[in-house]
Amino acid sequence: MTKKHNIILQPSGSRGQVEEGISIRSAARDLGVEIESICAENATCGKCMVLIEEGRFEKYNMDSRRENVSPVTTEEAAYFARRPKLLKDKGWQVGQVRLSCQCKIHGDVLINVPEESRGNKQIVRKSATQREIEIKPAIRKYLVTMSPPNLERPIADWERLAKGLETSMALVRGTEEKLSRWHEMGIDYQCLRTLSSTLREAKWNVTVSVWQDREVVQVQAGYHEDSYGAAVDIGSTTVALYLCNLRTGEMLAAESEMNPQIVYGEDVMSRIQYTIEHKDGLEKLHKAIIATLNKLLKQAAKTAKIKTEDILEMVLVGNSTMHHLLLNLHPKDLGLAPFVPAIHRSVDVKARELGLHINSAGNIHILPTIASFVGADTSAMILAEEPHKQEENWLLIDVGTNAELVLGNRKRLVCTSTPTGPALEGAHVEYGMRAAPGAMERIVIDENTLEPKYKVIGVDGWNIDHADFKGKVKGICGSAIIDGVAELFRAGIVDSRGKFNTKLSSNRIRKGESGWEYVIAWAEETSIGRDIPMTQQDVRQIQLAKAALFTAARTLLKRSGLESPDKIILAGGFGSYIDKEKAMLIGLIPDCVLENVYAVGNAAGDGARIALLNIEKRREIESITRTVERFELPTDPEFQNQFMLATSFPHMSEPFPHIAHLIPNRVADPMAKNFMSK
Amino acid sequence: MTKKHNIILQPSGSRGQVEEGISIRSAARDLGVEIESICAENATCGKCMVLIEEGRFEKYNMDSRRENVSPVTTEEAAYFARRPKLLKDKGWQVGQVRLSCQCKIHGDVLINVPEESRGNKQIVRKSATQREIEIKPAIRKYLVTMSPPNLERPIADWERLAKGLETSMALVRGTEEKLSRWHEMGIDYQCLRTLSSTLREAKWNVTVSVWQDREVVQVQAGYHEDSYGAAVDIGSTTVALYLCNLRTGEMLAAESEMNPQIVYGEDVMSRIQYTIEHKDGLEKLHKAIIATLNKLLKQAAKTAKIKTEDILEMVLVGNSTMHHLLLNLHPKDLGLAPFVPAIHRSVDVKARELGLHINSAGNIHILPTIASFVGADTSAMILAEEPHKQEENWLLIDVGTNAELVLGNRKRLVCTSTPTGPALEGAHVEYGMRAAPGAMERIVIDENTLEPKYKVIGVDGWNIDHADFKGKVKGICGSAIIDGVAELFRAGIVDSRGKFNTKLSSNRIRKGESGWEYVIAWAEETSIGRDIPMTQQDVRQIQLAKAALFTAARTLLKRSGLESPDKIILAGGFGSYIDKEKAMLIGLIPDCVLENVYAVGNAAGDGARIALLNIEKRREIESITRTVERFELPTDPEFQNQFMLATSFPHMSEPFPHIAHLIPNRVADPMAKNFMSK
Repeated sequence: MTKKHNIILQPSGSRGQVEEGISIRSAARDLGVEIESICAENATCGKCMVLIEEGRFEKYNMDSRRENVSPVTTEEAAYFARRPKLLKDKGWQVGQVRLSCQCKIHGDVLINVPEESRGNKQIVRKSATQREIEIKPAIRKYLVTMSPPNLERPIADWERLAKGLETSMALVRGTEEKLSRWHEMGIDYQCLRTLSSTLREAKWNVTVSVWQDREVVQVQAGYHEDSYGAAVDIGSTTVALYLCNLRTGEMLAAESEMNPQIVYGEDVMSRIQYTIEHKDGLEKLHKAIIATLNKLLKQAAKTAKIKTEDILEMVLVGNSTMHHLLLNLHPKDLGLAPFVPAIHRSVDVKARELGLHINSAGNIHILPTIASFVGADTSAMILAEEPHKQEENWLLIDVGTNAELVLGNRKRLVCTSTPTGPALEGAHVEYGMRAAPGAMERIVIDENTLEPKYKVIGVDGWNIDHADFKGKVKGICGSAIIDGVAELFRAGIVDSRGKFNTKLSSNRIRKGESGWEYVIAWAEETSIGRDIPMTQQDVRQIQLAKAALFTAARTLLKRSGLESPDKIILAGGFGSYIDKEKAMLIGLIPDCVLENVYAVGNAAGDGARIALLNIEKRREIESITRTVERFELPTDPEFQNQFMLATSFPHMSEPFPHIAHLIPNRVADPMAKNFMSK
Repeated sequence: MTKKHNIILQPSGSRGQVEEGISIRSAARDLGVEIESICAENATCGKCMVLIEEGRFEKYNMDSRRENVSPVTTEEAAYFARRPKLLKDKGWQVGQVRLSCQCKIHGDVLINVPEESRGNKQIVRKSATQREIEIKPAIRKYLVTMSPPNLERPIADWERLAKGLETSMALVRGTEEKLSRWHEMGIDYQCLRTLSSTLREAKWNVTVSVWQDREVVQVQAGYHEDSYGAAVDIGSTTVALYLCNLRTGEMLAAESEMNPQIVYGEDVMSRIQYTIEHKDGLEKLHKAIIATLNKLLKQAAKTAKIKTEDILEMVLVGNSTMHHLLLNLHPKDLGLAPFVPAIHRSVDVKARELGLHINSAGNIHILPTIASFVGADTSAMILAEEPHKQEENWLLIDVGTNAELVLGNRKRLVCTSTPTGPALEGAHVEYGMRAAPGAMERIVIDENTLEPKYKVIGVDGWNIDHADFKGKVKGICGSAIIDGVAELFRAGIVDSRGKFNTKLSSNRIRKGESGWEYVIAWAEETSIGRDIPMTQQDVRQIQLAKAALFTAARTLLKRSGLESPDKIILAGGFGSYIDKEKAMLIGLIPDCVLENVYAVGNAAGDGARIALLNIEKRREIESITRTVERFELPTDPEFQNQFMLATSFPHMSEPFPHIAHLIPNRVADPMAKNFMSK
């Protein structure tokens, strides 16, 4: 029988008995500790460095000695000799630090696996709950060294590479995995085209990038350790691209651009309409987004100092219309009853089929859609926030021109969508503007003096505290619109029905061109030379938007038999900037403990990044989206009634205990059903 | 317990007990008899017609009555009502003929399954052994009828189709198969692009073409039963395309064109050279063959009266250089030691990737290569002739500018190739020409008078029998060159070393411009106004070619420990036209019983067609080619010696018992080693 030795791996504390003479890396795998390696254990990549700790470890009743492992090999010595800076920076000595693929165990040892050598790397994501994401990308790289062909063994280039690759994969991944999955290795046709010349140029020493353990998509001369991928959130307004290192998960660049389709229509319905009315409409919208994506890819590659052809995968999300336009699928049935997408499940398609300028053999993965108005962006949001793993019932809301809502927990998820109009994003509001320098972002109104104060993007502090605010204000962005309406209500300037109280004495409350209004900034404070008011019309716009959103949330709650959600998660840029309390005060979101309302930023983009970095997450969201129940609001008979009730502040028939202290004493007429007719 | 009934299926004679009430088609499947159906048992396609035989069948001790099956349904009646001609032609009556998917069994019956309804159709192929090829194409069609989406079930188009398809496939194929293979059904991206509009245009009633049970490649409105494929043999000189019905195996068109690459070089080496010497060489040669293939596809579709977009698959074969040029792979390493192809195994690639104008989602399958000079055409020849299934040892020879040879049986196959030069095809022979009108195709020389007679393509009979031969002859084609040399030898005009016997008295033997020659046709017999001789140089060319071929065959025999092959199979146009006896007399092929020498025509093209029609054959040849042993002749130390000995007629050191009676008494000097130096 073979002799056994005790080994302990830190910091995991994994321990066990291993056979005499096996390498530390193999031993670690046997104990369930993955150590990186991409050079097929050739002492080339150095990814598998470990430290041999010396001394008596009482806690484990164990003596650990450097003599208990094999001596430093010539290859190891050569590897470290080429890296004096690394040793100096880390304070390591050769002999203490070893390549675990080379170092054999001949006695008891305690081994320290430094962070950078650990397999199954993780990145940390801030979310409603902070959590770690394991790095398991679709692309893995392997160093393959072959003997050149000769007349005795004139085996073809691909078969030679495939054999070498099999050996490398077996070493890196372990034999067990190999048997079950690697028997059908293929090579992308375009990649095959340059294979012969690359192998010869590389003198039969190449790095092979394999997609999903089954297709070779890149063969590079020599040794390369990093590969790259891009995650993209295609919003109707903005396209955001994140370039990531697929090995470490590190984000190397984040670029964004306006969605160029905006010139063909501001919202999805008008873009769908454009494709119906123009024969070349679809082609134009498709080409526009592809061109923008290529521009973003180029920018990101430049920022990260890599070549776009080294980007080997791309994961994209977007609402169903963006999804169809990206894929060059006609979106007309998304906009016509019964509102059906062309496809729910995720799509994998070669970059070259879409004309996307990453490596031509690279894969484009588009997350699954849930419904005509609940798209791949919602799938991504679910993936990022994981309501399907919770005991509590979470309400996820992604607010844009359209709002998508998902409610539920690990037992059941329901979803719906509702058009909210552009008011919440600052459009169609008289002085509304994008969140840019010069935009008011916060508004507070003194309920006694009825005087306002505000903050402006690009300037510190409140306007009333600084003289240098003069001439800076240009308009009102989304978050300040919510603030403004909430403050008008809190100060009693508008009543719970949204109607101006014209009896209050303040020169800011006045009849303007289009009806009653409240002046927030006088002309001399602005850069546009005009007073900036919030108008009755603006208030009405917000009422319609928030009623739609609230009714959608209430419908989901009712269908799920719930009174209120345990947590509310606001996704999207809008959610990050609004004041949660004020949003609740106007009844934009259901009542909830304020601490349980989270703004998580671009959850769709995060979901895309998670799917890019972890292939198991793609399978997870694929199966989750198939179980999500969809409700179409207009088919709910109660919808119109509920909607009318929901237009009042905070709501005509719902208690809002968590913001009750902010509601002014004047109570709206509970029967005033026709207030909107004014 | 359910009641059971006895059924008998003719002509197979399959019999057994089946459950009360099941359909004849299901019952037949249970008894191992496949009945066609592509309409998912909707009484639409009529592929599953059977005849209910009436009467007392003593042999089986059974009464069969039409009353023992369910009455004709409305759907069946409607189906037959639309086809009065069919019933009349066949002499069938409704009630006697039934759709087996509709007709339920309620008692004992004897059922006749007509040829056209039987599943697993076969075509018969002439070969060295006549045999049947089962039709199991990669493409199968299914009729899918869906309910349209509505607001209650707004499931996406692809998922709706996939679900309907699953139902259809289960009905057509049986449940057992389904569970194991159909869980990963996908759809080609380009096919997805038009899915939504097709489904609506078709009112949710479509025919779906599925490739390899796993990818939807075409969705057609309404019911379609036939799909089409093309098999292509890309020769260095000629490209031949066969358009087939993939359901019936029927060949609908056969078209051929010159290989356009010929302008860049006559043989493969000169084309490889062209790609090395010209930067755009590969691109030019690749585009040339693609353009010719597209032309052939168009012609064939026109002949068959179908659309090229209804061609859903293409199988191509060719030598390794043709293979590389087709795939746009650089062929330079095919021509340089150690002579390695880019890839051995078969390649599947989308038609659109190669710019081939069949359906853009269609698959292009290219058979595996065996070595640098033993290509996919040889794989196809093996597939067509099946030496790997024989007990006997067969020698397969495909003769062209290059000859490929395969020897062996089910235990072992060895192969090699040898350049034979263009002489055997009539090129580089002074009056050589292609097999076209005006070419001599047969030559006989009277050994007493030394006078010749000949046959000419396009004219019946021998020249000496008809006055109308005058002025018709233009040159000598390949088969007549073999005849001519063999006859010169048989008549003693040249000796076994190939040297003219200048002492014979005949005005036809004379010293010409380039040495001694024998005049076959006088100027007045020709259309070119000049004497047509065979020259010493012509005889030398044939000697070199036949020595190369013979030495290759001998090397394979020696390596396999065999004295002689049990059968010789000559593939290619050349093999079909030559006189087997004369080929053996000059020692072109090894000695063998003459009846066991077969000419099988374009075996490569046949192999391509077999692979097109039967997907299991693709797997078979894939695994066979991996076991074929390759020998490179120049590495054989005996090669030069053997080659020299093989230049003499029939051979300097081999007995040829089967043609010994034809060898003239004059015996060549066995030690004359330097005879070629003359």
